[in-house]
Amino acid sequence: MGENVLDEISHRRYNPLRGSYVLVSPHRTKRPWQGQQENPSKTTLPAYDPSCYLCPGNKRAQGDANPQYESTFVFVNDYSAVKEEQASYDPDEDNRSLASFFLKAEPVTGRCYVLTFSPAHNLTLADLSPAEITPIINAWTEIYLMHLSPNSPLASAIPAARRPAKSTVCQLTSPKIQYRYMQIFENKGAAMGCSNPHPHSQIWTTSSLPEELTLELEQLKKYRRGHEDRHMLEDYAKMECEKGERVVFKNDAFVVVCPWWATWPFETMIISRIHKRALVDLDVEETEQLADAITEITRRYDNLFETHFPYSMGIHQAALEGTEEEIESSHIHIHFYPPLLRSATVRKFLVGYEMMAEPQRDITPEQAAAKLKHCAGPLYRK
Amino acid sequence: MGENVLDEISHRRYNPLRGSYVLVSPHRTKRPWQGQQENPSKTTLPAYDPSCYLCPGNKRAQGDANPQYESTFVFVNDYSAVKEEQASYDPDEDNRSLASFFLKAEPVTGRCYVLTFSPAHNLTLADLSPAEITPIINAWTEIYLMHLSPNSPLASAIPAARRPAKSTVCQLTSPKIQYRYMQIFENKGAAMGCSNPHPHSQIWTTSSLPEELTLELEQLKKYRRGHEDRHMLEDYAKMECEKGERVVFKNDAFVVVCPWWATWPFETMIISRIHKRALVDLDVEETEQLADAITEITRRYDNLFETHFPYSMGIHQAALEGTEEEIESSHIHIHFYPPLLRSATVRKFLVGYEMMAEPQRDITPEQAAAKLKHCAGPLYRK
Ligand SMILES: O=P(O)(O)O[C@H]1O[C@H](CO)[C@@H](O)[C@H](O)[C@H]1O
Ligand SMILES: O=P(O)(O)O[C@H]1O[C@H](CO)[C@@H](O)[C@H](O)[C@H]1O
Repeated sequence: MGENVLDEISHRRYNPLRGSYVLVSPHRTKRPWQGQQENPSKTTLPAYDPSCYLCPGNKRAQGDANPQYESTFVFVNDYSAVKEEQASYDPDEDNRSLASFFLKAEPVTGRCYVLTFSPAHNLTLADLSPAEITPIINAWTEIYLMHLSPNSPLASAIPAARRPAKSTVCQLTSPKIQYRYMQIFENKGAAMGCSNPHPHSQIWTTSSLPEELTLELEQLKKYRRGHEDRHMLEDYAKMECEKGERVVFKNDAFVVVCPWWATWPFETMIISRIHKRALVDLDVEETEQLADAITEITRRYDNLFETHFPYSMGIHQAALEGTEEEIESSHIHIHFYPPLLRSATVRKFLVGYEMMAEPQRDITPEQAAAKLKHCAGPLYRK
Repeated sequence: MGENVLDEISHRRYNPLRGSYVLVSPHRTKRPWQGQQENPSKTTLPAYDPSCYLCPGNKRAQGDANPQYESTFVFVNDYSAVKEEQASYDPDEDNRSLASFFLKAEPVTGRCYVLTFSPAHNLTLADLSPAEITPIINAWTEIYLMHLSPNSPLASAIPAARRPAKSTVCQLTSPKIQYRYMQIFENKGAAMGCSNPHPHSQIWTTSSLPEELTLELEQLKKYRRGHEDRHMLEDYAKMECEKGERVVFKNDAFVVVCPWWATWPFETMIISRIHKRALVDLDVEETEQLADAITEITRRYDNLFETHFPYSMGIHQAALEGTEEEIESSHIHIHFYPPLLRSATVRKFLVGYEMMAEPQRDITPEQAAAKLKHCAGPLYRK
């Protein structure tokens, strides 16, 4: 096989999903660490915090009060990065000037939401059961549906059963225009810039297709064209399930892997094992299996260093609007990018070399997967 | 002009050097911050620390002792990310298998150096005068020269006067093979993963051309082909010097700008105003002007929030080996990526949305440049 030598030597691996490289230096964790220590999050938060703007019943920044919600709750972010209405912008019209080449800008409009996962201030995804995570996935699906273009090939394919009877989003007004993409993500832990521990995700919807999605879509389309219409991530999931060494967990519908090309030490990806374009393509059972996969990976993360494991998580799926080829080439997957490397207090920094030259990692994805495989079972703090 | 409206509205800007986008949300700093606070570095370090492995005379990890150096000092990193010798690797040979598509790896060899800036443990670039920074640039140049391919178009163009009489690198052995690229960089401050405050840079030399350089080179070549052999960064520096609003500092040879497409809040770039391929292309005066520019930007950074301002800094220049087009299209510039946003303790996190979708910034580069312009003068702590 020749693969085991990669546990010992420096090498770079190719990421076919982005078309980029990562440098792997497996021997490098042996170096001593005298640098920054993270503060592991306090494990003793109250179930209700009167000063939290996400707890049920409390007042938010602009004076609105949260309802006494019982499961999830969604609202428009009081400090949205993009807005539905703003002044218009006319770029420099002189096409021959240097400025018209170098000073390119395009306005971006959109809407940002916050979706809480639970009324309890002190719970995280790792604390919730799959049955408690399913309503979160349903809420994401519902919000996506509300923004989906009626012209999308996805729109006609959605079974009526997927439209939830009791709506989470009834309090939201319809978006003013058709947006292009919806990014659902979670920043967990102070080390990942999260400013409120109350469990929540964010949803940023924009008039443009963001950078990372543009890169991935290009690669997904290229693969399909070059491989008789097969889907890259379906082929990849199949190969990983056969090989096994990077698989952390799998059920019938999803597999959790440390991808071959992982950048962050314990980076993982949840991949739908067969081609699904977006959350709305999942049936009731598949949704439960996704909840199961999310439980499995978030618990293992917390168990690994017996801490509230920080990460950023994001769902990549079909755009709200796009060509048929774009929608059909999309394949739902979830990225988890956690910073911790050696312990609850020592993280990996992607800094100088990584920013200037090439992302670099210190343990192999196979080593990371082996560790995560052995952290199964109940949450350490239960 | 239509440019001022960009201070108010969300928009994305194009980075022609990488071919990528950044989302700018100028109104966003208004949101309250209850997240992580950085610990500003202690300003009371001793000039000599007996436990520091970079101070003169001290022992290093593998037992070597540092000489009693007086200016700079270079040695091979005791924990190199890449090495000159390692086991060989034979990838999977079956071209038709899924594994041969997905499990791509190539071995990377190379050498990593550490170069100290000063014998004093408690000084930083901001504390040094241009006359003290010039020997650092000369050392970088000398190390580069030692690794330069004799077949490079650069090799024949170097005036004898640039080969320093008293060599910093005399204690280094020649590299075993011809490497492809040399990345010179500095991580400064615990917030940027620096594990030792003794002022130093790192130099990683590799058999492959790293990701970021590959991206930039592609864009530089494309510009040249499309613009009658003109150089992108020469045109860009010219335009910025004319416009002025993103210029922090300039002298005859260099300009320091907050680039139009900056991602980090106070990101800057030092650009050679005329086309220079690498440090070895600079004459004695230009080298002094570069030292001057480095002094100007690092002092202003420290003055901005009256703190030891963390950053990662990296020099992009011609590869050690490459085609004539690659070498000729290269244009020396230095990136500074500092994380601080609001104060000495509140940084910008490039996390969830930024990792999953698109880099996002909260103030405009024009606003950042205006602040840095007004921080000139002597170092606040002198
Ligand atoms: O080499 P150092 O200073 O020990 O380590 C620092 O810089 C390296 C190069 O950017 C990074 O890979 C490390 O994550 C960082 O902590
Ligand atoms: O939106 P928040 O939680 O206030 O802020 C956090 O997530 C955002 C989206 O990834 C980032 O832009 C911010 O830098 C980060 O602190």
